[in-house]
Amino acid sequence: MSKTIAINAGSSSLKWQLFEMPEEKVIAKGIVERIGLKDSIFTIKYGEGQKYNDVLDINDHEFAIHMLLEKMTELHIIESFDEIEGAGHRIVAGGEFFKTSAKIDEEAIQKIEALAEFAPLHNPAEAKVIRVFEKLLPKTTNVAVFDTSFHTTMPAVNYLYSIPMEYYEKHKARKYGAHGTSHRYVSERAADMLGKPIEELKIVTCHLGNGASITAVDGGKSIDTSMGFTPLAGVTMGTRSGDIDASVLPYIMDKEGITDIKEMVNILNKKSGLLGISGISSDMREVESADTEEAKLAVEIFNNRVQKYIGSYVAAMNGVDAIVFTAGIGENAIETRRDIINGISWFGCEIDDEKNNVRGEERVISTDDSKVKVLLIPTDEEVMIARDVEELK
Amino acid sequence: MSKTIAINAGSSSLKWQLFEMPEEKVIAKGIVERIGLKDSIFTIKYGEGQKYNDVLDINDHEFAIHMLLEKMTELHIIESFDEIEGAGHRIVAGGEFFKTSAKIDEEAIQKIEALAEFAPLHNPAEAKVIRVFEKLLPKTTNVAVFDTSFHTTMPAVNYLYSIPMEYYEKHKARKYGAHGTSHRYVSERAADMLGKPIEELKIVTCHLGNGASITAVDGGKSIDTSMGFTPLAGVTMGTRSGDIDASVLPYIMDKEGITDIKEMVNILNKKSGLLGISGISSDMREVESADTEEAKLAVEIFNNRVQKYIGSYVAAMNGVDAIVFTAGIGENAIETRRDIINGISWFGCEIDDEKNNVRGEERVISTDDSKVKVLLIPTDEEVMIARDVEELK
Repeated sequence: MSKTIAINAGSSSLKWQLFEMPEEKVIAKGIVERIGLKDSIFTIKYGEGQKYNDVLDINDHEFAIHMLLEKMTELHIIESFDEIEGAGHRIVAGGEFFKTSAKIDEEAIQKIEALAEFAPLHNPAEAKVIRVFEKLLPKTTNVAVFDTSFHTTMPAVNYLYSIPMEYYEKHKARKYGAHGTSHRYVSERAADMLGKPIEELKIVTCHLGNGASITAVDGGKSIDTSMGFTPLAGVTMGTRSGDIDASVLPYIMDKEGITDIKEMVNILNKKSGLLGISGISSDMREVESADTEEAKLAVEIFNNRVQKYIGSYVAAMNGVDAIVFTAGIGENAIETRRDIINGISWFGCEIDDEKNNVRGEERVISTDDSKVKVLLIPTDEEVMIARDVEELK
Repeated sequence: MSKTIAINAGSSSLKWQLFEMPEEKVIAKGIVERIGLKDSIFTIKYGEGQKYNDVLDINDHEFAIHMLLEKMTELHIIESFDEIEGAGHRIVAGGEFFKTSAKIDEEAIQKIEALAEFAPLHNPAEAKVIRVFEKLLPKTTNVAVFDTSFHTTMPAVNYLYSIPMEYYEKHKARKYGAHGTSHRYVSERAADMLGKPIEELKIVTCHLGNGASITAVDGGKSIDTSMGFTPLAGVTMGTRSGDIDASVLPYIMDKEGITDIKEMVNILNKKSGLLGISGISSDMREVESADTEEAKLAVEIFNNRVQKYIGSYVAAMNGVDAIVFTAGIGENAIETRRDIINGISWFGCEIDDEKNNVRGEERVISTDDSKVKVLLIPTDEEVMIARDVEELK
């Protein structure tokens, strides 16, 4: 009986789940929010619906993790720190280097830090958290699980941009994608649910959350994905524009008196997408329930971009056996799933409205006759992280 | 018997064709190159394979047109200027204003000039040429034919970017597309060749030249197209990047010490695409015949992007009846057509290698059994311009 903790660290937050392994049983989970700000929020859920909350000033990730370990002991979730044999850390950018999850040593941490230029807000914070774990839990095996690894199987024809080759050779400017752990999890589940070897399946996985990406999974391997060099590209998202003619940038900058391209790209990341079109919210639920012309357009545009990416990946794989929906919107937005699939019925997919009338439950939601199967699969990046730790420790 | 001239003016060139209308017979055609530079080249083809060439300094478009009219008289292509009853001018940017071709009056010229911010190199030069025609041929009816008009039927869901709505409302930042006259011509021809009303057809038209764009023509109307706010977006082109994660721009600018975003966008327009990837040429023929890894990748990437756009438009139209190839590459690159179609056979399209073994000849190139028809249709923007003049004069 051993325990593994899956860690998802942001610049001001720390999400975690503690697993009993290899049973993959979640013993406790929680989140620390507003780290480094006033009134940080500390939450643990454990046992049979028990909950612990606190609001206090947590100045850094080290204090957050220290407090987490102390509280888990106090609440008898663990009896001693030593029980946590493994810690899996979600890392945003693994570049071309990390093709799989990796056991942490000094070289790996340095490499993660060096990849900071691909994820300036994430990789440094994540590397710091690993160092804290090494300090506070010296006997625990740390494993890094990368958002990009699953996409390192993409062929050059899909990861290269049509720009001067030297920008790739010198600066590694290329498509990396994201949400890899989620796309990997749901594509594997889909194969299990369909009772077919994943090697024989062509699957389009739609991770539709506040961030959203579509992946072409051919024979179990990611061959193309809609996010790009960064998560900005691809489909319309909560606040991100997705794909846009790059010429729009200098045009808007001229018109709006924006002199720094980083400010412009920041607008595309933070003020665009559903929020930018609707002017109401980045949250699909709020946009869907709003009764304005712009809100309706935002929903239509979201569906349209997802449909077009599905179509492009059917082309890229020259076929499709299954389409999978996951993440916040994908798991919960019944109408979104219905409208997306109904609009591309020519591909041979048909929604079963009754089966589809559900939130967050794993099931096939296409009709029995549907040539292309449609699946709803709640994602579970944490269990994938725990599994990778189990395998590598 | 009346004559109509179709004019395609660039900043330093003037291409033209003279038609006998309504027979649509080409009486003469030619080009003036290097206008405003030393040693301008003046060429006319007429009669039964006759040719007139001259190299001299032509300082501006007015002198070029003056010389053209004089030479046509001298060569007895026309007997008097009055015979040219109509002149059709290809205009790059018509914005949201010009939904169809337009008879020229002072207001129209001013509008064309005002749209210069969408096509700074083209619209001003084109407006100037119209003014010269009005001066030199005061009795001739001038008609403007816009590259964008055919795409003004796009619904908002496809022409809007997922950016703050005010950028569209205030600055008209949206997708306009290009090559409209070509997409219109080949989609109409496709319907004729298939013997079906265009209203009942879903067609993907692939205009693949040095510039390239793919259009979804549903019921005779463009509902989506791959070029965007400018011709930079969409598929890989001779020197243009096509779609790219906008975040790549600040990254490359930092790395390369580029401080002006216009310089960066210029690189994406002029030094990218087939040229950028291959490092050899922007010309598909030269890239195809080169025996390097990068050249092979360039060709594969080109095909891949076209395939993915076809797939996305099959999704957008929820079906496809025909795929059309046109323009330089589309009309002549036999292997490109074959490889693109073979790679997306799942859609129900199949190339007939024998029928496809041809350059620049109008024909169906799919097998008789092919559910989705594939057509090769040489484009003819000039005849569309002449027809629009005929209709409006």
